[in-house]
Amino acid sequence: MERRDFLSGGFGAVGSVGAAGAVGAIAGLMPGIASAQDLPTVSWRLTSGFPKSLDTIYGGAEQFARIVETITGGKFKISVAGPGEIVPGPGAFEAVQKGTVQCAHTAGYYFLNVNKALAFDTTLPFGMNQRQHNAWVYQGGGLELLRELFAQYNMVNFPMGNTGAQMGGWYNKEIRSLEDVKGLKIRIPGFGAEIWQRLGAAPVNLPGGEIAAALRDKKIDAGEWVGPYDDDKLGLPAVARFYYYPAWWEPSAALSLYVNKAAYDALPAPYKEVITVATGWVNQWMMAAYDSRNPAAFKKMIGSGTRLQLFPNTFMIAAYRAGFSIYDAEAKVNPAFKKIYEPWKRYRAEINEWHKTAEAAMTNFLGNWRAEG
Amino acid sequence: MERRDFLSGGFGAVGSVGAAGAVGAIAGLMPGIASAQDLPTVSWRLTSGFPKSLDTIYGGAEQFARIVETITGGKFKISVAGPGEIVPGPGAFEAVQKGTVQCAHTAGYYFLNVNKALAFDTTLPFGMNQRQHNAWVYQGGGLELLRELFAQYNMVNFPMGNTGAQMGGWYNKEIRSLEDVKGLKIRIPGFGAEIWQRLGAAPVNLPGGEIAAALRDKKIDAGEWVGPYDDDKLGLPAVARFYYYPAWWEPSAALSLYVNKAAYDALPAPYKEVITVATGWVNQWMMAAYDSRNPAAFKKMIGSGTRLQLFPNTFMIAAYRAGFSIYDAEAKVNPAFKKIYEPWKRYRAEINEWHKTAEAAMTNFLGNWRAEG
Repeated sequence: MERRDFLSGGFGAVGSVGAAGAVGAIAGLMPGIASAQDLPTVSWRLTSGFPKSLDTIYGGAEQFARIVETITGGKFKISVAGPGEIVPGPGAFEAVQKGTVQCAHTAGYYFLNVNKALAFDTTLPFGMNQRQHNAWVYQGGGLELLRELFAQYNMVNFPMGNTGAQMGGWYNKEIRSLEDVKGLKIRIPGFGAEIWQRLGAAPVNLPGGEIAAALRDKKIDAGEWVGPYDDDKLGLPAVARFYYYPAWWEPSAALSLYVNKAAYDALPAPYKEVITVATGWVNQWMMAAYDSRNPAAFKKMIGSGTRLQLFPNTFMIAAYRAGFSIYDAEAKVNPAFKKIYEPWKRYRAEINEWHKTAEAAMTNFLGNWRAEG
Repeated sequence: MERRDFLSGGFGAVGSVGAAGAVGAIAGLMPGIASAQDLPTVSWRLTSGFPKSLDTIYGGAEQFARIVETITGGKFKISVAGPGEIVPGPGAFEAVQKGTVQCAHTAGYYFLNVNKALAFDTTLPFGMNQRQHNAWVYQGGGLELLRELFAQYNMVNFPMGNTGAQMGGWYNKEIRSLEDVKGLKIRIPGFGAEIWQRLGAAPVNLPGGEIAAALRDKKIDAGEWVGPYDDDKLGLPAVARFYYYPAWWEPSAALSLYVNKAAYDALPAPYKEVITVATGWVNQWMMAAYDSRNPAAFKKMIGSGTRLQLFPNTFMIAAYRAGFSIYDAEAKVNPAFKKIYEPWKRYRAEINEWHKTAEAAMTNFLGNWRAEG
């Protein structure tokens, strides 16, 4: 048998396991022979919904592009653009849907005007913490439900980053009771804003970069962003005294990579796996980055006169009740919301029953006893 | 210029950016041309330190092998073996060190006989929870410190999996005070055993598979393993009534992939990045898997008569003090331990100050208020 015949015979014999498997088998038998199926050169554009000044959150997309390029030996390149460079931040969803860009790094809860069910991609007030959200998407059926939703918009979604539990923001008056919420002009978007409004506040939405000036000029009484590291970059500690916690509207906030479906479908299997694994890496990296950068920023603020305050429990409970009543109402009129909400709510209840034992007891003990103590 | 000359000229011109970059540039200019630098076929063996019956923890190595093979189009294959198939579980460290296998999936705290500093790779009693450990290794300087330590043993280490905070185990008598600890025969290994012993207990070490029989035959009074999902697989709920929490000796437990240094150094850059990213993926996957599988196992136990009990605070505090006194003593005689212990302790204190605000408050609230409530 001539060498050519041997090779084609070999491919035929293992054809049923797919091209990648066949290449592996041949290469294993005959080391040194170049792989027959060379992977294509691919160039993509990614639009990030986050300002470049926020290195942790914007940096996630850069990490992703670097990993994809390194693993593929430079064959799959992704160029990362900030908001406004290709499309503005709020245009990211449509840009992916229509194929203007191949992918975007943003968060579902910025697009509630498209469908309120997109909130499950990020978080809902009193939803899940970071560990719980990860468990739900990766192993609890969450990703499958979200993929069905995003398919309607011509996209494939991948979790890519999380901020953890956020701080409740910066206030120039104290929140001692529900009475103090009435009339409060607070910068807050999304479902959180709906809940504050139901409790009597006057929520407004502003881009992150405008919060500090609005607080300084007393156009708002309070404003929230993410947590110590990012809030410091936005100049918030200088314009408000009270730093409240926790942001019950963001028990964690997950970010995602949205990929245009046609662009994704055109990729060979190894590149698809690269996207899954690289987005997963960034998902974990960003949480580690926030967890490593927040402590020093937090310490600095507390040392510079910021007054740390816990939201009163009566306020938390009232907000909790308002939240689930808003979700129940949405589920009645929005089948896409209902389809995710019901299994999400069951999953959330069961994981909380478990996490309140060892995990919570340990974390609380560690928080209260210092190594020096 | 002939086509051949053009190609070699092309490589020469961009040679300074490295082989991978050059391949990308050429392919970008001339789409469809096969990459000149084909990646090699590589076959590795991985020995797992965990029994195949524990699908979450053993499954991590299988996930890793699958990802590496898929991303490389079948060129980089890793065959996964259980304990005893190549070497027994306790032989994994030496097998990687000597190059008997290219890599092992195990945990540093199984090898305290080699160096107690290896505990930092996994956890120490009253150490960090899963988020904190991840933050420390990936972004807080931990991995660099651990890499220096592992280089002494001819290895490169990669975080690859975590169990989260573990349960404190199964008891046939109640622990109401420090008096109840005296003389208690408990199955527990490592630093945890040292602390129990200092408080008056009589710790013994047994392989996971022998705990249930020893409890049933009253050879031990208590035994701990991981948490509901794995403990159920080992048959522990049937042989003891009280399920205590938290395992203060395992506020999280990180697993790692140990790679023989020569094998790692021989890999091309894209394969090195594949290992970093695939181990990171499994690190996150395993936590999500435990978080998704534990709740149902936990619910089943509680519904079948298991009595859930919180360790008394006096016991926790006494154990905490004993632990740090043991670490301080070790740091005095073991420079490798001291070198990691000091920055680890500082990092731990600072991240706890931060995590006890928004993260703890949110998690505690979510644990105490149910969606139905």
